[in-house]
Amino acid sequence: MRLLLLIIFSVNTYLSFTQNDSIQIKSFYNAALTNGKAYEDLRSLCKDIGPRLTGSAEAEMAIEWGKNKMEEYEFDKIYLQEILVPHWERGTKESGWIRTSKGKIKKVNLLALGGSIGTNGLIEADVVMFNSLSDLKKANKKYVNNKIVFINQHMDEQQINTFKAYGGCFAIRGYGAVESSKLGAKAVIIRSLGLPLNKDPHTGSMYYVDSIKKIPAAAISTEDANELEKSINEGKTSFLLEMDCRDFPDVTSYNVIGEIIGNKNPNNIITFGGHLDSWDTGEGAHDDGAGIVHCLEAMRIIKNSKYKPNNTLRLVFFMNEENGNNGGKSYATWAKKQKNENHIAAIESDRGGFAPRGFHCDGPEKYISLLKTFENKLKHYDLHIFEKGYGGVDIGPLKKEFEGIPLFGFVPDSQRYFDFHHAPSDIFENVNKRELELGCAAIASILYLLDQNL
Amino acid sequence: MRLLLLIIFSVNTYLSFTQNDSIQIKSFYNAALTNGKAYEDLRSLCKDIGPRLTGSAEAEMAIEWGKNKMEEYEFDKIYLQEILVPHWERGTKESGWIRTSKGKIKKVNLLALGGSIGTNGLIEADVVMFNSLSDLKKANKKYVNNKIVFINQHMDEQQINTFKAYGGCFAIRGYGAVESSKLGAKAVIIRSLGLPLNKDPHTGSMYYVDSIKKIPAAAISTEDANELEKSINEGKTSFLLEMDCRDFPDVTSYNVIGEIIGNKNPNNIITFGGHLDSWDTGEGAHDDGAGIVHCLEAMRIIKNSKYKPNNTLRLVFFMNEENGNNGGKSYATWAKKQKNENHIAAIESDRGGFAPRGFHCDGPEKYISLLKTFENKLKHYDLHIFEKGYGGVDIGPLKKEFEGIPLFGFVPDSQRYFDFHHAPSDIFENVNKRELELGCAAIASILYLLDQNL
Repeated sequence: MRLLLLIIFSVNTYLSFTQNDSIQIKSFYNAALTNGKAYEDLRSLCKDIGPRLTGSAEAEMAIEWGKNKMEEYEFDKIYLQEILVPHWERGTKESGWIRTSKGKIKKVNLLALGGSIGTNGLIEADVVMFNSLSDLKKANKKYVNNKIVFINQHMDEQQINTFKAYGGCFAIRGYGAVESSKLGAKAVIIRSLGLPLNKDPHTGSMYYVDSIKKIPAAAISTEDANELEKSINEGKTSFLLEMDCRDFPDVTSYNVIGEIIGNKNPNNIITFGGHLDSWDTGEGAHDDGAGIVHCLEAMRIIKNSKYKPNNTLRLVFFMNEENGNNGGKSYATWAKKQKNENHIAAIESDRGGFAPRGFHCDGPEKYISLLKTFENKLKHYDLHIFEKGYGGVDIGPLKKEFEGIPLFGFVPDSQRYFDFHHAPSDIFENVNKRELELGCAAIASILYLLDQNL
Repeated sequence: MRLLLLIIFSVNTYLSFTQNDSIQIKSFYNAALTNGKAYEDLRSLCKDIGPRLTGSAEAEMAIEWGKNKMEEYEFDKIYLQEILVPHWERGTKESGWIRTSKGKIKKVNLLALGGSIGTNGLIEADVVMFNSLSDLKKANKKYVNNKIVFINQHMDEQQINTFKAYGGCFAIRGYGAVESSKLGAKAVIIRSLGLPLNKDPHTGSMYYVDSIKKIPAAAISTEDANELEKSINEGKTSFLLEMDCRDFPDVTSYNVIGEIIGNKNPNNIITFGGHLDSWDTGEGAHDDGAGIVHCLEAMRIIKNSKYKPNNTLRLVFFMNEENGNNGGKSYATWAKKQKNENHIAAIESDRGGFAPRGFHCDGPEKYISLLKTFENKLKHYDLHIFEKGYGGVDIGPLKKEFEGIPLFGFVPDSQRYFDFHHAPSDIFENVNKRELELGCAAIASILYLLDQNL
C-alpha cells in the first residue's frame, strides 16, 4: 500500500512537472506570437539606430538604446560593463574597377574588409587569381610580386549547413592580406563570402601581422568576381581600387547588461545574449539585431510570465563581436577575475532571425545528454536539433574561465543566412516577423528548461 | 564457415545498397544546388507567363510552357490530358471603401473571392461583424437582413503549423457567402486568410449553393479589417464595394504529363507533381510555381543521373487546383476508368518553395513505416519530418480510384507561406533560390527511395 502510494505520488509529481513545463513553454510561445515586441524592437534597432560598428556614434547610441529597452521592460538590475574596443572607419572613398583583357573599364561593387588600411589614392596593378588560400601560399613570389591578388574561392553550395561552407572559406578573408603581402602583392581582392550570385559585396574582419607589410584588402560581389575571373581567363587583366578606410586609437565602449535575479540561487548565473555591434553596411538586422531582440524578448516574456527563475538570468548585449570580440573576452575575465562569479551556463543567438530548428551544446557530455532530453518538450514547436555543436563567439571566452561550463548555440535554419551576412542587404525588411518571434520563444523555453534542470 | 560467408555476403550487400542510396541522393543534391535549373525555370514561369488562372490566356500559355520544358529536358513521353475547367474572370472593377462611424471614407485593399458574382454597380450597406462562421450561423435574420456581413476571424497565430491555422479559418472564405445570404445579407466581406498584419488582400475559392441566392463575396487586407473592426466598435459603419467579376461557360484545358518509362516495371506508375494554375493575383510563385519546378527539376535531375527507375515516373502539371480541382479529379478517373493503369504511389508539392523539412504520408500503415525508414537516409539533408499526414489536393482523388495507394506530401517550412498565399505578394522575388533547390533535391530523393522500395 505504501509502495502504491509512493508510486502514485511519484507519477503525480512527474506528471505535474511535465505539465508545468508544457504550460510554461506554451505560454512563452503564445506571448511571442500574439503580443510580441521583438519585431518592432528590431525595426527600432535597425531604423532608429542603424548599422553599429564598434567605435561609431551609432554603436554608442545602440548602447543607450539597449539600456533604455531593459529599463522599459523593468529588468531587476541594469548596468554597463566598460570595455576597450578597436575603432576602424570605412571612410568616404571606396571604389573598384576591372580593366578587362579587352581594355574595357568595368565598375565593381566593392567593400573594404574590416581593419584594412586605405590605398592612399587610386592604385592599379595586374591581377593574379587563386582559387584558395592554400593555392596562394604555394605560389612563386615572382608571379605575385607587385600584383593585386584575387582569391576567387567559392563558398561550397553543396554543403547543406551553410555555416560549414562559410567556415571553409573564412581563411581567404581573414588571412588573404598577410599571405599576399608575404609574396609582395600590392593589394588583395576576395570573392565575397556570400552564397547567392548577385551584386552584393560582403565585408568582414581581416587580420594583419606586425612583421608583415600591411596591404589593402577588399571583397567584390560574386557577380563581379565572375566577371573578373572571365576577364583573367581571357587575358591580361588589371584591377584599380581606391579606399580611404583607416584605424583610429581604441575607444571606451560597453557591454549592456540586464538581470532577473534568481529566486533560489541568485549567485548562479546563466548568461545569454547576442552582439549589439554590427558591420557598417546594411543594418545588422540578421547579424545580430535578431539575436539581440531574440534574447531581449525572451527575457521580457519570462519576466511577464508567472515563472520565477531559480538562478539569475543575465542578458548581455555584447559589443565588438565583429572585429575583435573584446566584449566577449572582457566579459569572461571580468566575471571570473574581478567578480569571482559562479556561471552555470551560457546561450547565444548569432545565426540570424530564421525559423528555429534547435540548439547546439558545446560542453561536457552530461550537458549534451541533458539537451537531448529537451527534444520531447520542444518537438511540438518544430524544433529537432538537440546535439553537440558550437555555442557562439561572444560566450566562447567563458569556457576558459569557467571550467566545464556548457555553452548553448541557438540554431535557426541556415539556408538564407549567407544571402545577407555582412552585406548591404542585411536590413530589417529581410527578417520575417513570425520566424523571428518563434526564435524568441525557443530561447525563452531553453532558458526555462536550463534554469529548471541545472 | 558457410554461415560466416553468408553473413559477410549479407553485410556487403547491405552496405553496397546503403552506399548506393547515399551516393545517389548526394548526386541529386549536388546537381540541384550546383547546376540547378529550378530557379530560372520559376523565373520564366512567373515572368514569361505570369498568373495562371484556369480559363485565362495565361493558363493556356502555361500549358505550352510546361510541354516545352518537358521537351527541352527530353523526357521519354510527353502528352496532354484534356479536361473541362471553370472559367471565372475578375473583371476590371474591384474597389471597396469603409464609411466610418465618424462619416469618413477610407479606401481598402480588396480582392473578389474566386467564383464570386459581381455587384452590378456600386453597392452600400451597413456592416454587421462576426468573429467566425459559427457566430454568423447563430445570428438572427433581422440583424443581418439587407446588411453587408463582415467576418473578422483571425488566423490563429499560436498554431505552430500555419496550415492548421489556415484550416481553422478556411470556412469563412468557402461558406461565408451562403451563410450570409441565408440571413438576407447583400454581400459578404472577410478578413484575409493571411498571417501578417499588412495591406495585402488574399483571394481564394468560395462556394455557392443553387438553392441559395448568390451574393458578392470579397476579402480585405488584415490592416483594413482592423480599421473596419475599429470603426464598427465605435458606431454605425457602412461598406461600399463594386466588382464586375463573373463566370463564363466551362472551357477545355489540359493536364501536362511527362514520363520516364520504368526499366523493370513500366506499368507501375508513380505520379508526382504540383498545379500549374494559380490565382490571378501575384505570380503564383510559391502557390504553386514552386511545386511545378520542384518536380520538373527532380525529374530532370533523375534523368541526367545514372539512375534508371524501376517504375514509370510520371510528372503531372495539374490544371485547376485552385477553383475546382478538375485536373486532379479527371486525372484519377482517366487513369483508372479509361486507362486501367496500375498506380503505386503519388507525391505532391503544394506548400511553397521554402526550406524542406520532410514528407507526410496519407496511406496504409505499412507505407508510413516505410517513410519512417527514409529518415536515416535523409536526415543528413536536414529533413526530419517523416510521419502520417496529408498528401495534396491534386493527388487526393487517386485514393478513391486506387485502393490503398499511398499519397506523399512534401513538407517545407510553413512559417512564411501565409505571408504570400493567394496574395499579390506571391511573386518570384519572394522565393529563395537555395531553399527552392533543396526542395527539388528532396523530391528527387523520395522518388528514388520509393522507386527502390515499392
